Amino acid sequence: MSLIALGTVAIDHIKTESGLKKDLLGGSASHFSMSARLFTKVHLVGIVGQDFPKTHTKFLQQKGIDLTSVITREGKTFSWRGEYKKGDYNNAVTLATELGVLLNYYPQIAHHQRDIPNVFLANIDPDVQLNLLHFMKKPRLIGLDSMNLWIEHKSRSLKRLMKKVDLFVANDGEARMLTGESNLIKAAKAMRKLGPKLIVVKKGEHGVLFYSDKFMFSFPAYPVEHVVDPTGAGDTFAGGLMGYLTKVKTLNQKNLKQAVIYATTCASFNVEGFGMSKTAPLTLVKVNTRMKELIKHISL
Amino acid sequence: MSLIALGTVAIDHIKTESGLKKDLLGGSASHFSMSARLFTKVHLVGIVGQDFPKTHTKFLQQKGIDLTSVITREGKTFSWRGEYKKGDYNNAVTLATELGVLLNYYPQIAHHQRDIPNVFLANIDPDVQLNLLHFMKKPRLIGLDSMNLWIEHKSRSLKRLMKKVDLFVANDGEARMLTGESNLIKAAKAMRKLGPKLIVVKKGEHGVLFYSDKFMFSFPAYPVEHVVDPTGAGDTFAGGLMGYLTKVKTLNQKNLKQAVIYATTCASFNVEGFGMSKTAPLTLVKVNTRMKELIKHISL
Repeated sequence: MSLIALGTVAIDHIKTESGLKKDLLGGSASHFSMSARLFTKVHLVGIVGQDFPKTHTKFLQQKGIDLTSVITREGKTFSWRGEYKKGDYNNAVTLATELGVLLNYYPQIAHHQRDIPNVFLANIDPDVQLNLLHFMKKPRLIGLDSMNLWIEHKSRSLKRLMKKVDLFVANDGEARMLTGESNLIKAAKAMRKLGPKLIVVKKGEHGVLFYSDKFMFSFPAYPVEHVVDPTGAGDTFAGGLMGYLTKVKTLNQKNLKQAVIYATTCASFNVEGFGMSKTAPLTLVKVNTRMKELIKHISL
Repeated sequence: MSLIALGTVAIDHIKTESGLKKDLLGGSASHFSMSARLFTKVHLVGIVGQDFPKTHTKFLQQKGIDLTSVITREGKTFSWRGEYKKGDYNNAVTLATELGVLLNYYPQIAHHQRDIPNVFLANIDPDVQLNLLHFMKKPRLIGLDSMNLWIEHKSRSLKRLMKKVDLFVANDGEARMLTGESNLIKAAKAMRKLGPKLIVVKKGEHGVLFYSDKFMFSFPAYPVEHVVDPTGAGDTFAGGLMGYLTKVKTLNQKNLKQAVIYATTCASFNVEGFGMSKTAPLTLVKVNTRMKELIKHISL
């Protein structure tokens, strides 16, 4: 089975304690694909401007990511300039956002892609996410991610969309904001009531909480000692999660736990370098090696 | 083997979202003992004023806690008035602290107690903690807890003391404050360098990180949906930890993991009620039942 992923493709300028990096390939769909490709064929859906460097395009293609449905339009590629203050990797400070070609973007996909059974709607305007869903024939699994911006300003669209998806991933701040519940178990239950059967609450360095009607579980994060740049960690997590779930036959507890462990492992690589510097060289063998370490770290 | 525990015995007045409760039995040594007693005989070392209610004394005795070395002195019992703002159970707001008899307290213990092999120095002035250690003959295991107040104002005493203990428990904020490291693994390593071989970083609702030279591990917390009052959760955690470690022969990885799981389970009861309302009725059978649930929740 394969996986189609909609989201942003961006040019990032990022400042952290470890330095300043310009013109990095970023965006929710790019980071998502960079880990999901380790498990399955990924079809990316997005838009870039005419300024989008050919090296980035080639790089994504070399990683086996299908760019058939990445449109290039006149204008500038979506760009984000952000900073993380010393020691506070949970809160990105946005210095500038240039929407560029993202304005008035309407997703388009190739006809044959409508049959792809697994869909991930990475962070982008919920109306755009909904538009992609209209194209999909009979998805087996639809996953969704969002962000504080949409929860605040497009809550209606987001909630309409949540009724149509199977799996929802949110970080702790988003979960609290969306539901008004400060307790994360209550927040997970409240999100479940909004539609999705499978709820994943990412807590950054504190790990992850999974909630469904039948079972819930928690895992700590892989212990990363030198965080360099957390940008895209949530997307990388979602990529590992959806990538693995695309490969398995049933969404039972065992497979969901394994998927969360893979997601956690992939995300741990992401934060160790700027942009995709640590996820781009990854192979499934390398992921498996660290995953075994993680399992040792968290097993009873 | 038995366990001796020094710390505060207090009268707490606590306000949370769930209400206001006055004249609760509190203090680091009381909360510690209330969970440690489930595993071993606990000898409490502390001081109260003449105003200390006899009902509290009887209550502690009925729980099997030895009060031989709890001194009663003229004056008022140490008292704490605090509040937790809605949804923020990680930060207690201190409204008033009355030291009372804690001022100029010098711990005294019965002669025969000097041979007790396991010692826990629950949160109290580090100079007082050091004074107790002078009495102890050849402890097998010494555990230590502290707080932001002492890290800020008695850092020298605390660091001198840390050289003499085997196990140090700190919450995430204290760990960061003490070491200046925002990354908790770095902070744990830095604390290890200050002396204690076994480092436990409590992260509240996010669980716990254990660090030693030979191994480290993390566990999430038990998922508590209705937090009522977190006061004493850290002490209750330490009580479960030290209580279990007092019972086992060796401090190997298996036993330390089991101790942390017990500690986590005990702490989860504490936060579900005001004061000791949920830990006082506990039996080891009840703890084991919830511990099995926790294990199911966190196992791979």
